[in-house]
Amino acid sequence: MFSHLTKRSFLTKSMRFFSSKLERLSFEKLSQSDISYFSSILQPHEIITDPKELDQFNTDWKKNYKGNSSLLLRPNSTEKISKIMKHCYNRNLAVVPQGGNTGLVGGSTPIFDEVILSTSNLKKVYGFNPYNSVLTCEAGCVLEDLNNMLSKEGYEIPLDLGAKGSCQIGGNISTHAGGIHFIKHGPFRGNLLGLEVVLPNGEILNLESEVRKDNTGLDLKQLFIGSEGTLGIVTKANIHCVKKDNYHRVLLLRCQSYEQVLKINELTRRVVGKNLSAIEFFDDHAYWSVINHIPGVTPPFEVGKDFENFYVLVELAGSQPLESLEETYFDALSEADLANECVLCENEGQALNLWKIREQIATASNHMGSFLIYDFSVDITQWMDLVKDVRTRTTGKGFTVSYGHIGDGNLHVNIVYTDPKLKDELVSILEPATFDWLHKKRGSISAEHGIGFMKANFLNYAKPDNVIQILKDIKRVFDPKGILNPYKVLPNSVAPTDYRALGIEDSKGSA
Amino acid sequence: MFSHLTKRSFLTKSMRFFSSKLERLSFEKLSQSDISYFSSILQPHEIITDPKELDQFNTDWKKNYKGNSSLLLRPNSTEKISKIMKHCYNRNLAVVPQGGNTGLVGGSTPIFDEVILSTSNLKKVYGFNPYNSVLTCEAGCVLEDLNNMLSKEGYEIPLDLGAKGSCQIGGNISTHAGGIHFIKHGPFRGNLLGLEVVLPNGEILNLESEVRKDNTGLDLKQLFIGSEGTLGIVTKANIHCVKKDNYHRVLLLRCQSYEQVLKINELTRRVVGKNLSAIEFFDDHAYWSVINHIPGVTPPFEVGKDFENFYVLVELAGSQPLESLEETYFDALSEADLANECVLCENEGQALNLWKIREQIATASNHMGSFLIYDFSVDITQWMDLVKDVRTRTTGKGFTVSYGHIGDGNLHVNIVYTDPKLKDELVSILEPATFDWLHKKRGSISAEHGIGFMKANFLNYAKPDNVIQILKDIKRVFDPKGILNPYKVLPNSVAPTDYRALGIEDSKGSA
Repeated sequence: MFSHLTKRSFLTKSMRFFSSKLERLSFEKLSQSDISYFSSILQPHEIITDPKELDQFNTDWKKNYKGNSSLLLRPNSTEKISKIMKHCYNRNLAVVPQGGNTGLVGGSTPIFDEVILSTSNLKKVYGFNPYNSVLTCEAGCVLEDLNNMLSKEGYEIPLDLGAKGSCQIGGNISTHAGGIHFIKHGPFRGNLLGLEVVLPNGEILNLESEVRKDNTGLDLKQLFIGSEGTLGIVTKANIHCVKKDNYHRVLLLRCQSYEQVLKINELTRRVVGKNLSAIEFFDDHAYWSVINHIPGVTPPFEVGKDFENFYVLVELAGSQPLESLEETYFDALSEADLANECVLCENEGQALNLWKIREQIATASNHMGSFLIYDFSVDITQWMDLVKDVRTRTTGKGFTVSYGHIGDGNLHVNIVYTDPKLKDELVSILEPATFDWLHKKRGSISAEHGIGFMKANFLNYAKPDNVIQILKDIKRVFDPKGILNPYKVLPNSVAPTDYRALGIEDSKGSA
Repeated sequence: MFSHLTKRSFLTKSMRFFSSKLERLSFEKLSQSDISYFSSILQPHEIITDPKELDQFNTDWKKNYKGNSSLLLRPNSTEKISKIMKHCYNRNLAVVPQGGNTGLVGGSTPIFDEVILSTSNLKKVYGFNPYNSVLTCEAGCVLEDLNNMLSKEGYEIPLDLGAKGSCQIGGNISTHAGGIHFIKHGPFRGNLLGLEVVLPNGEILNLESEVRKDNTGLDLKQLFIGSEGTLGIVTKANIHCVKKDNYHRVLLLRCQSYEQVLKINELTRRVVGKNLSAIEFFDDHAYWSVINHIPGVTPPFEVGKDFENFYVLVELAGSQPLESLEETYFDALSEADLANECVLCENEGQALNLWKIREQIATASNHMGSFLIYDFSVDITQWMDLVKDVRTRTTGKGFTVSYGHIGDGNLHVNIVYTDPKLKDELVSILEPATFDWLHKKRGSISAEHGIGFMKANFLNYAKPDNVIQILKDIKRVFDPKGILNPYKVLPNSVAPTDYRALGIEDSKGSA
């Protein structure tokens, strides 16, 4: 796949990106009078200056990125955020917005000494309206807390992420990660009816709405969804929630070629239709790693010896009993003779066991050593070309597992390694080689994790130059001084550098 | 409801909008050398200059707006559109993009002498990919043609509009109308994966993608969805299509209070969940008008005498037989004792008969006389307050019927009148009074028809001033000369005027 370019040429190209040190842009330095001003508008517990306490907010949760901020502010109202931003804008102080700090691409931690503006005290829930299914809440609400509240009403937020226990809804909106039930809910932006946003200059933008259809010109709030806090700070949201399903059924299929996986996916989507709640893929390397490294998982199938199997996990869900659908579906599967083996869950415990295999793949990678994790989108017919190539190129250095949301084309690849010194070499082998390949195949270098700091200088593998130019123009409309989340998402105007030189330790996490 | 403002004060406010004549902005006039240039890059059949032939393209389909363009271009490729726009941009010639010209707010016809750039020859269908359910086609494809093609594969485009027989997919994207199955499909933008767009200066923006998840910074294509051709011309799209449902069931409920309608809506959405394909409302005035003015409709209920009834049409749909869901649903309805009468369709003919009642309401209004048509979004608990007030304020002048997509909060109101001279008075009574009321109730002055020319100077009832300012800034990023679809969507910088003074005839259409 990468045969047209030798490894050497990629290393050379890659080196270009890591050749010079990133320089701090010419923002002002925080002064005592700034702290005094913030103290005049905030309560003491809304201000953190203690370096030890700041440490966790300066560091991303996978411990890949570490900034050096000396101030975190966590105001409990939009008005306070507005005052803070107005002050920072006038003073030319850089600011990084931070939610639950669960991101994987260094988007929510400072690069240098940016003021950290946390939304974690924006906790107000304004309520749920059963007539229009709209939940209104502030940005700092934790996704799982909101869902627990909605569950009593029989509803859920149309978003389900692994980080749900700590990620905040404002961060969910700003990063727009998709998660496991994307195939059921579609993109989160389709259910975001309104936002309140504070602009870099402190202006409050009222884009709130509880109506589902509003065709009054271009939909400005779309710009704040997925722009990773570079255009404004989301402070409040109106979310269209959905009815929870009453019936679920989980099954795991095993087959011996990826061709069969593709056919199972096509058949399942066609036959199950809107009752398809999730359809997930993993390879035998992933299965092997979970069965061997995660305690308490009952293997539904014997572990093979030559990594020759492929797995598809299917979850059906609906408002009514699923027996008749299951019958139709199983008949179709059987007639097509696609799966060699199939396990159908008879109870919730069995379903959880199957889901555990899929959901613990990253944890298993972590138990085996350190690992690089990628989130690509590309036509699913191309998945194994990419995986095989990554596996070949990293042979002897890393152990590659592949898995992902096959229903929506989102492939995850982990490359596990045990010698920390191998990290740089593996990164050099894969970046930007895989990004370049994805670009040529019209895929995405980030299906859900975002660009953040990690991939800002690789944005040219995601968008044409004239699109990037317009993104810069739009950034200037909202943030002419560039104070909000600098060094992120857009390629830096200054010479890019090795982000791993900025105090970054070895990548050992549990993504 | 409007009691805090007298009719007189509204008239005064309204008059302000209609007090001065709209002036043509200082674009260049078309010259013979422009025509020569276009002739050098286009085939003869791609150029129309005959005034008679131009007439239908200068006029919107409800014959409310009439421009005076002397040139229509209908190129058959993106490259030709790019060349045309580059020329117009350099020459400072204004351009109005036009698709199927089925809009209701004067967005796709020239106001003065703008060049009409039609997408109707962009007809290429690049194909449907069953692995990712993506259809790729050019902007000029007609919605119904695409659906007929997809139907053979068992799929459909997640958009269903009354104008489907003539509206073009590029126009659908640019205007983002929702239609009758919005509750089933969600907003169209959630299924638009990629676009190709030609900018006002002729640059081609490649935002094409067939992947569902792509978190590589802000999603620029969102700006072209719903901005009514003011930022760029959509030339090609990648659309995520959905599996057609195998089973359908339609029922019509009748009750005697709007309170019961609200409860039926809440119960139906809760119990039926994702199998709810449509839930529509109409009042007795609408029912009466269809039964009395549309031939061939079998009345499922006797027509009442005092307009005391309310109707809810429900469509269930799914991949599997619906009997068990129906049983649960009917039990719940019966237990809640919400509907006085119910008709359940036993076959497709009966279902079509019920749908005809809902879908022929506008045609019935047209048979009764001329009519104003509005499309509002507002919390459904407020609907009858608005309808009663409109009815009271127009008593003796118009006959008001109300109906709409109650599942998504989109209310339509028609005010039928028989004396053409009453039109101006009715407009003065309702505009901007209803817009002002909707603004205060956090509703939308346009749920789906858009802003176009009709409501451009009422945009302040839809968005705060600082939002409108940003919209203007964004317009400048894409179109610094303002040549693309001028006078539309954004409030004009020049003194606004009575759009009805621009050669506008009486509103008599069949929307």
